[in-house]
Amino acid sequence: MDTSSDTLRSALPLRHAQKVTFAEPVALALGGALPAVTVAYETYGTLNAARDNAVLICHAISGDSHVARHDAGDEPGWWERVVGPGRAIDTERWFVICPNVLGGCRGTTGPNHLDPRSGRAYGAEFPAVTVADMVAVQRRLIAHLDIAQLRAVVGGSLGGHQAMTWAVAHPAQVRGCAVLASSPRLTSQAIAFDVVGRNAILRDPAYAGGQYYGGDGPAVGLALARMLAHVTYLSREAMTAKFDAARLAPREIASAFEQKFSVGAYLAHQGHKFVERFDANSYVTLSMAMDLFDLGATPAALRAALAPSRCRWLVVSFGSDWLFPAEQSRQVVDALLAADRPVTYCNVDASGGHDAFLLDEKLEVYGGLLARFLASLDGPGATPSAGAPARAPAPTSIFHDQRLDSARVLELIPAGASVLDVGCGGGELLARLRGRGHARLAGVELDEAAVLACAARGLDVVQYDLEDGLPPFRDGQFDVVLLSQTLQSVVHTERIVDEIVRVGRSVIVSFPNFAYRSLRRMLAEEGRSPKADGPYSFEWYNTPNRRFPSIADFAEFCRAKGLRQHRAIYLDSETRRWIGPNEDPNRNADVAIVVLSR
Amino acid sequence: MDTSSDTLRSALPLRHAQKVTFAEPVALALGGALPAVTVAYETYGTLNAARDNAVLICHAISGDSHVARHDAGDEPGWWERVVGPGRAIDTERWFVICPNVLGGCRGTTGPNHLDPRSGRAYGAEFPAVTVADMVAVQRRLIAHLDIAQLRAVVGGSLGGHQAMTWAVAHPAQVRGCAVLASSPRLTSQAIAFDVVGRNAILRDPAYAGGQYYGGDGPAVGLALARMLAHVTYLSREAMTAKFDAARLAPREIASAFEQKFSVGAYLAHQGHKFVERFDANSYVTLSMAMDLFDLGATPAALRAALAPSRCRWLVVSFGSDWLFPAEQSRQVVDALLAADRPVTYCNVDASGGHDAFLLDEKLEVYGGLLARFLASLDGPGATPSAGAPARAPAPTSIFHDQRLDSARVLELIPAGASVLDVGCGGGELLARLRGRGHARLAGVELDEAAVLACAARGLDVVQYDLEDGLPPFRDGQFDVVLLSQTLQSVVHTERIVDEIVRVGRSVIVSFPNFAYRSLRRMLAEEGRSPKADGPYSFEWYNTPNRRFPSIADFAEFCRAKGLRQHRAIYLDSETRRWIGPNEDPNRNADVAIVVLSR
Repeated sequence: MDTSSDTLRSALPLRHAQKVTFAEPVALALGGALPAVTVAYETYGTLNAARDNAVLICHAISGDSHVARHDAGDEPGWWERVVGPGRAIDTERWFVICPNVLGGCRGTTGPNHLDPRSGRAYGAEFPAVTVADMVAVQRRLIAHLDIAQLRAVVGGSLGGHQAMTWAVAHPAQVRGCAVLASSPRLTSQAIAFDVVGRNAILRDPAYAGGQYYGGDGPAVGLALARMLAHVTYLSREAMTAKFDAARLAPREIASAFEQKFSVGAYLAHQGHKFVERFDANSYVTLSMAMDLFDLGATPAALRAALAPSRCRWLVVSFGSDWLFPAEQSRQVVDALLAADRPVTYCNVDASGGHDAFLLDEKLEVYGGLLARFLASLDGPGATPSAGAPARAPAPTSIFHDQRLDSARVLELIPAGASVLDVGCGGGELLARLRGRGHARLAGVELDEAAVLACAARGLDVVQYDLEDGLPPFRDGQFDVVLLSQTLQSVVHTERIVDEIVRVGRSVIVSFPNFAYRSLRRMLAEEGRSPKADGPYSFEWYNTPNRRFPSIADFAEFCRAKGLRQHRAIYLDSETRRWIGPNEDPNRNADVAIVVLSR
Repeated sequence: MDTSSDTLRSALPLRHAQKVTFAEPVALALGGALPAVTVAYETYGTLNAARDNAVLICHAISGDSHVARHDAGDEPGWWERVVGPGRAIDTERWFVICPNVLGGCRGTTGPNHLDPRSGRAYGAEFPAVTVADMVAVQRRLIAHLDIAQLRAVVGGSLGGHQAMTWAVAHPAQVRGCAVLASSPRLTSQAIAFDVVGRNAILRDPAYAGGQYYGGDGPAVGLALARMLAHVTYLSREAMTAKFDAARLAPREIASAFEQKFSVGAYLAHQGHKFVERFDANSYVTLSMAMDLFDLGATPAALRAALAPSRCRWLVVSFGSDWLFPAEQSRQVVDALLAADRPVTYCNVDASGGHDAFLLDEKLEVYGGLLARFLASLDGPGATPSAGAPARAPAPTSIFHDQRLDSARVLELIPAGASVLDVGCGGGELLARLRGRGHARLAGVELDEAAVLACAARGLDVVQYDLEDGLPPFRDGQFDVVLLSQTLQSVVHTERIVDEIVRVGRSVIVSFPNFAYRSLRRMLAEEGRSPKADGPYSFEWYNTPNRRFPSIADFAEFCRAKGLRQHRAIYLDSETRRWIGPNEDPNRNADVAIVVLSR
């Protein structure tokens, strides 16, 4: 046993791990100190001459430094499908660093290391560490590698906690922060599961006060903790798909754990595998660090915590993740939006649960977001990555296939104004504004593919549902809020209009006019529910439109709400002619563009 | 230790429990037998002279015979808020019987009882029992009480499994079956949690092969199992509400379990309390019986399993219950509907998780459903209970506040026809049909309050979302399907029309005509999105209507789908005049009633 090697009997040496030992004492956030710290880490790719292409990957509770293969003969890493040459985190472009966390058991100083003061393993005497301590040690490593600023810090779950801590504690050193399947703090439910797992370990008689390194250790308790945790990493639907067809046909395994059910044998296998590679004291240490992580319990506290960040953000949640549920990622995104920080957010529609960020199922979405996010960090106003897919706007208008009003909407926006595009589709308008040099641009869009298209353009867009309003945004946060050809497709009209005039010092609304002459004619003369010719000529029974106001209806609606109308511009897209205010626009225009404010 | 008392040192005697011992051997479903069985049970209220007012309550895994107080000085029972004089299960009206289950530890034969063959407690030698075995023993009890038929069997969770088994295994003995928070079989996720819990017990060194009755027993393992199970009984939102505000301020309790977090101290307390009152071998026995319960893995198997039942059914799920999720209750309801069994279903919008059926939060809904269900079992075509609340129909039409078309719709329905009313509101039409003597009537309605109103009328209605179609129903299952003033309020028009003509040999659709003269005028002359005067005169921005067909639109839609139109009747509700086919109904009628079939 020495200070630079694992003391855990069963820990496999990580072949490619490099180690560096910092001999100065490390003071810890909760008190106490470590006399020295060794960090095990692996790197991939090449640090460029400017030393500005480093991407730090932070691992989750059971991870280690081996994030990917180093060569064809190597063991696969825990994020093999994401990290590597040509992968989402492209090691031909980025210099990837993945350290084992402080308190871990795969090379970095942890409970299974020698305490030089006692001459035996730290064991249960290992001091309580926090996510901030993990980051502080990683920061020493980055300094050791002579890297002043990270292109990005990337992490899922507990790794996301580390990434967020980097961004807020060391803002000058982080250009991009990508957080997957994480949270501002754990739910009480998630803590409860961790508590049960720790109790299983600590009350296992073989735990022996934590000094079990000469013997078998608390194999039953650790396996129980892992089985339980494993269930929380999967979604109910994923477990149904995997185990329901043959629930009473367990795989045969050598185990003293119950094997009546297929899922039981699977969990027993997972428990045994984990005991082979993980140290129980590390598990207790890391799960406690995760449970104590807390960026803020209230929106205000969270906003204050995240405000110091200076990086761009990518936040990704997964719809079936019930351990770190999407609403928690949205709390982070809400706080970033309120603090006016650039952020892209996507709740990926995946069935894999918390583990979805490690799975193939939606790799093209979360991997695509990661790749495009890293590419967009080249500088402010980054250009779209080569070959980014073009995408048509969402078909929310029945009235015209060309957004003929777009050019006019752009003209109405003052140079340099900050703009929020609500229902931004694939980001066409925002991209044109960026081309004009607007610095602060953001979008809101519900469609996952549209969010991905925005990311491909290097735009910041959050996947929120307009029907919920715009609660994260502050009053008057943007010079201009756009609602372009979206009014007619939302149900909660009043809430959305209230919200856009709250958030925008000025708002521009473009919408189709239901009292356009051909539509009037269709109902009045033909007795048919109106529709227009062209590719968006939906039938009454399948139109995506939900609301059917005329120009007069919307004007009265705004008057009744006491809104001020600054401009109103009317277009007849059939004849491609602008209609003057005295030319009966309510009959002769099919599109209205209105500039409003409270 | 004797055969009629618990051998578990810590089990409290249940003061009011009666006991009966059946001396004949009991053969068990999975093989093996018990030489004799004692049943502990409590009763409430009085069995009437006809012996037909008995309600059997089946308890969940940790319950016992003490379902409610017997007098003011008594300890509260586990369903105190539901059972008692004047309560939902009114002991002044019903003779309530609650037995402890076979394999339990509170008086009925279980692992902590003496095995007369060995002279010591059964312990781990207690044979595996199933839900069917539990019911077989309850049936002996019912015979012992000289009750030929139960008014109802009622149970939540594992109690629901017992209730369903009663209904299908002994159809002649059950008039009503009420199943709360239950499922046709456990999810693989739920089994996984049970597996971890059982492993914690069985791998606790103090388990001692199950013969621990002389000592402390597997207190740590049983407490861990209970802590884990307790988390699964609560919803994430309920835990957040209870523990998040002060997550690091645990109540002080005497425990060797972790107490860093509020939720941890709470779970430790729950674990210790459980160990005081429950036997680990019983827990293993009952949780295994629950995990093995399986009414069928496929819709066809489930339908075959439930088809033998001859009772009316009440199925209640709870929106936040993730252990026995609503979709599993819907599987049961789907199968009952497909088998043409009378069933009422409600997914109660409660935050309490699986435990919601034990809580105050939505007692007025699930208790109300139970009370009305029991009252409606007086006989076929039961009359509404006294004082049942009247309720207005859901405001889904903008066109008229009186359903003037209802009388005409009723006339169109052949005498004695089976009728499914899709979007049935509070059940007005169905109640009138019942008054006419129709035997097979059912409703589908999304609104919880409307479902409750239907139940108050003694009608069978399921709380399903029309937007999902009518998948549980068979082709041509009903003589008539009604879609009355609902067409305009649903988005998936085509799916719903396809479904009603599939399920009904004939369908009657009534809907408002968007090309009615005053509406045409409003758009054509005033340039305003049409609305009508009266209490349902919604504005364009807040109408609940989603689709706006004219009579001509709907006719063409039906033609294009190849549907046959048998009758079409048109009403001008403004002038209260029927409009003939040659009187331009598409202009002069505001309501159309159309009879269609495939």
